[in-house]
Amino acid sequence: MNGADRLCDTLLANGIDVCFANPGTSEMHFVAALDRRAGMRCVLGLFEGVVTGAADGYARMAERPAATLLHTGPGLANGLANLHNARRARTPMVNIVGDHAAWHLPFDAPLTTDIEALARPMSHVVRRVRSPDDVAPAAAEAIAAARGTPGVATLILPADRAWGDAAEAAIPVAPEPRPVVIEESTIAAAADRLAAAGRRGGLLLGGAAARGTSLDAAGRIASRCGTRLFGEVFITRSERGGGRPALERIPYPVDLACAALEEIDVLVLVSAREPVAFFGYPGKPSRLAPPHAEIVALADAGDAVDDAMLRLAERLDAKAAPTASARGVDESMVAGPLTDQAISVIAAAHLPDEAIVVDEGLTSGRGFYALSEGGARHDYLMLTGGAIGIGIPLAVGAAIARPDRKVVALQADGSGMYTVQGLWTAARENLDILFVIYSNSAYAILRLEMQNVGVTHFDRNAERMLRLDGPPLDWVAMARGMGVEAARAETTERFADLYMAALRRPGPFLIEAIIP
Amino acid sequence: MNGADRLCDTLLANGIDVCFANPGTSEMHFVAALDRRAGMRCVLGLFEGVVTGAADGYARMAERPAATLLHTGPGLANGLANLHNARRARTPMVNIVGDHAAWHLPFDAPLTTDIEALARPMSHVVRRVRSPDDVAPAAAEAIAAARGTPGVATLILPADRAWGDAAEAAIPVAPEPRPVVIEESTIAAAADRLAAAGRRGGLLLGGAAARGTSLDAAGRIASRCGTRLFGEVFITRSERGGGRPALERIPYPVDLACAALEEIDVLVLVSAREPVAFFGYPGKPSRLAPPHAEIVALADAGDAVDDAMLRLAERLDAKAAPTASARGVDESMVAGPLTDQAISVIAAAHLPDEAIVVDEGLTSGRGFYALSEGGARHDYLMLTGGAIGIGIPLAVGAAIARPDRKVVALQADGSGMYTVQGLWTAARENLDILFVIYSNSAYAILRLEMQNVGVTHFDRNAERMLRLDGPPLDWVAMARGMGVEAARAETTERFADLYMAALRRPGPFLIEAIIP
Repeated sequence: MNGADRLCDTLLANGIDVCFANPGTSEMHFVAALDRRAGMRCVLGLFEGVVTGAADGYARMAERPAATLLHTGPGLANGLANLHNARRARTPMVNIVGDHAAWHLPFDAPLTTDIEALARPMSHVVRRVRSPDDVAPAAAEAIAAARGTPGVATLILPADRAWGDAAEAAIPVAPEPRPVVIEESTIAAAADRLAAAGRRGGLLLGGAAARGTSLDAAGRIASRCGTRLFGEVFITRSERGGGRPALERIPYPVDLACAALEEIDVLVLVSAREPVAFFGYPGKPSRLAPPHAEIVALADAGDAVDDAMLRLAERLDAKAAPTASARGVDESMVAGPLTDQAISVIAAAHLPDEAIVVDEGLTSGRGFYALSEGGARHDYLMLTGGAIGIGIPLAVGAAIARPDRKVVALQADGSGMYTVQGLWTAARENLDILFVIYSNSAYAILRLEMQNVGVTHFDRNAERMLRLDGPPLDWVAMARGMGVEAARAETTERFADLYMAALRRPGPFLIEAIIP
Repeated sequence: MNGADRLCDTLLANGIDVCFANPGTSEMHFVAALDRRAGMRCVLGLFEGVVTGAADGYARMAERPAATLLHTGPGLANGLANLHNARRARTPMVNIVGDHAAWHLPFDAPLTTDIEALARPMSHVVRRVRSPDDVAPAAAEAIAAARGTPGVATLILPADRAWGDAAEAAIPVAPEPRPVVIEESTIAAAADRLAAAGRRGGLLLGGAAARGTSLDAAGRIASRCGTRLFGEVFITRSERGGGRPALERIPYPVDLACAALEEIDVLVLVSAREPVAFFGYPGKPSRLAPPHAEIVALADAGDAVDDAMLRLAERLDAKAAPTASARGVDESMVAGPLTDQAISVIAAAHLPDEAIVVDEGLTSGRGFYALSEGGARHDYLMLTGGAIGIGIPLAVGAAIARPDRKVVALQADGSGMYTVQGLWTAARENLDILFVIYSNSAYAILRLEMQNVGVTHFDRNAERMLRLDGPPLDWVAMARGMGVEAARAETTERFADLYMAALRRPGPFLIEAIIP
């Protein structure tokens, strides 16, 4: 049995049975080993950004890591932007990056790169396999690291360690993660602050705290104490709608974010960090909470977050669950020409129960979050690190993790183009995804940022860098070119018809929504 | 005047007037400054791999660097694979990578990354701008470095250094590169070896030695001494056809490469390194030249290569230019069903004079190189670092550098998908490029490599990772979706008709050639 075989067995023995892949020559033995294991599902991405983004979406919904298979340094490089998002989301992930045989590296063949250097900025753990016998232990270490933090673990697999014979030995099983249980004094301190602060107290729920047990506990605390509940600017995954406790998302624009937090005296961080501005601007602050606010770290990712939140609720005697139910979405505003807001209203109002929403709508999707709070119960996923081009892959991965649920991907056109190849994977795997493209033919967010910089008149160079028309992108043609059925909506009525019809239809479908 | 203005002025003052760009928020002041300078041509790529690959193609044909504009670490990461190719080609390039304002970095906002760490593996020089006053000197240093080695220079521009006021000062002009003049003893030694070796002597011409003065000198030496002339496995840019001295390209497969070099006793390297296997394989050598061969380094990139070759020819008394002329391409084999070889024959036989050929045909294009040697005079560009996905961007950049010449891009389908977004830039800039897609719906090269590994029967996982059908990619639809006119050829006759018609038609056109 060679190293590659033992790698596959270690992945499978540890519950990793999906591998998002874009292989190359140095990974052929690994491909052959995967081919001998029908229990492993290999999902091809036609570009590595699709591979890593899909692994992120998979893990966010499956709550366990997938593997990725990437080809040497350039293959890893192509996947780095979405690894960056995964790192910021603390998504568990095990990347297998092939490399040259060790004895071939000194010859500096054309594909030779410093893979460690490339991997480290976007990985929590990087480890190079040292021998065929080291493959299984190294993989188990990577799996443990991915699950434990959680985080992004990258394993570099030189070809000779994949093809070399490994001694027979038990396949290692990675230890279960042991989350750190928060000290009672920390819980008590947070409880005291929140009890005293009332409406001037806030819980900022990030990572896994924005769903499940933690979210429920937060809802009870809010009912009991008046505590305001906040979600991060970019939400990893939150359970929303259907009467779930609502999180106020901290707005992206600095001024709005500061305004949202200005009446907060105590902000308790739960699997979240102190909120900061996405970019620094002349004369604007980096920290979003007001200077007088006390920032209290309750529990971080990797801590026993749910346990901490349960104990916090108990200390606050917050027993009664809020009785809210889905209050519906007001559709009265959707008459007239198709706009981003009309799309958001329709999408929110008719969201299927238990949908998974992937929102990379950026400026066009800004209305959706508030609207959908009153809609059906759903999971809500965003890009987390600001590296655009995650929406389509994230939807692909989420759909593979949860084939029982509809995925609605709200996608800005400019960022959608970054990883447009993911549409093909959706078609090949026949994934139940409805892609909605907000087609405004512009990097609209950058047009706003230019205005923030004081530029209101654009000359040729700015127009050419910030507009995507001339020629317009035809998303229907592109989607069909990759095997995804698609249609175009230029009116509100047409969009509503297509959206409702697409929701009833299984498999991938794309609506190109033409908006101003 | 702010730092961004001074950056633009420094680029322009040093002859850099094309900027391939995909900007983001942290580069808005730079975009505004570019917008104030009509002399700068800004070319938008909808993905950063397009941006860096286009800058490579531009510089290879313009023989001077372009600038790129990339958005923070993830934007750079998306461009790294093609920067890797550029680094291997030693292409002069000045990358401007925006970063957060320095005072915002400690807050570790979501987009914060270690840009230096990401840049170094694929850059020859990395430099962070230290202040608004440092922008112009730093840019001049980067330009000098790009031109001098030549190579890839990456300049990190924190937003506050772009928007900050800079003192009035003269715009610096980078010194001209000073190539190292090769010692006469080195020339003499190489001449002695080649004179003695006759047909068992070889010149390996890489980089700029595969064209112009060096290539001519090599042709005279071959006539005089019988010296064999080799090109690298992956050719940066070579002038070919129309009776130019022909280079035997060292084959990609290790066995064929060793066979090609087995009768060589002396191999003189000119702007090239000793040839090594692209990958290491069990039981196969890393070095391609036979163990008995003497390897003689005459001149490296950055040396006065043309001067060295002229002096080498003079020492060998190699005065008579070979009198070869284009001998034509035998088209007799093209009857019957459409195959990769039929495409190569037709493409080579009807190549327009002074075409620029960008060849990322990989396995499908393997016949073209030998066939086109007898065809019209052309420049021939390949991917140089093995990071696939450079073909479409390289064609875009070459077409911008030389709008007077037809670009013929021979493109494998799998690698074409990596940077398919480049088609849109070809449409927007109305570039005179004929894209020929070898559509075999497979990573055919990897199917061969699997067989090299001893796997002849593919089960589901291997099939799913190595085949691109199910669904098939519809390149005509994708191209039209990005504004490029396109047509499909399923027979040899249809391909020939389309190819000839497309050559007569200015502007971008894509032929999807369906082959087994």
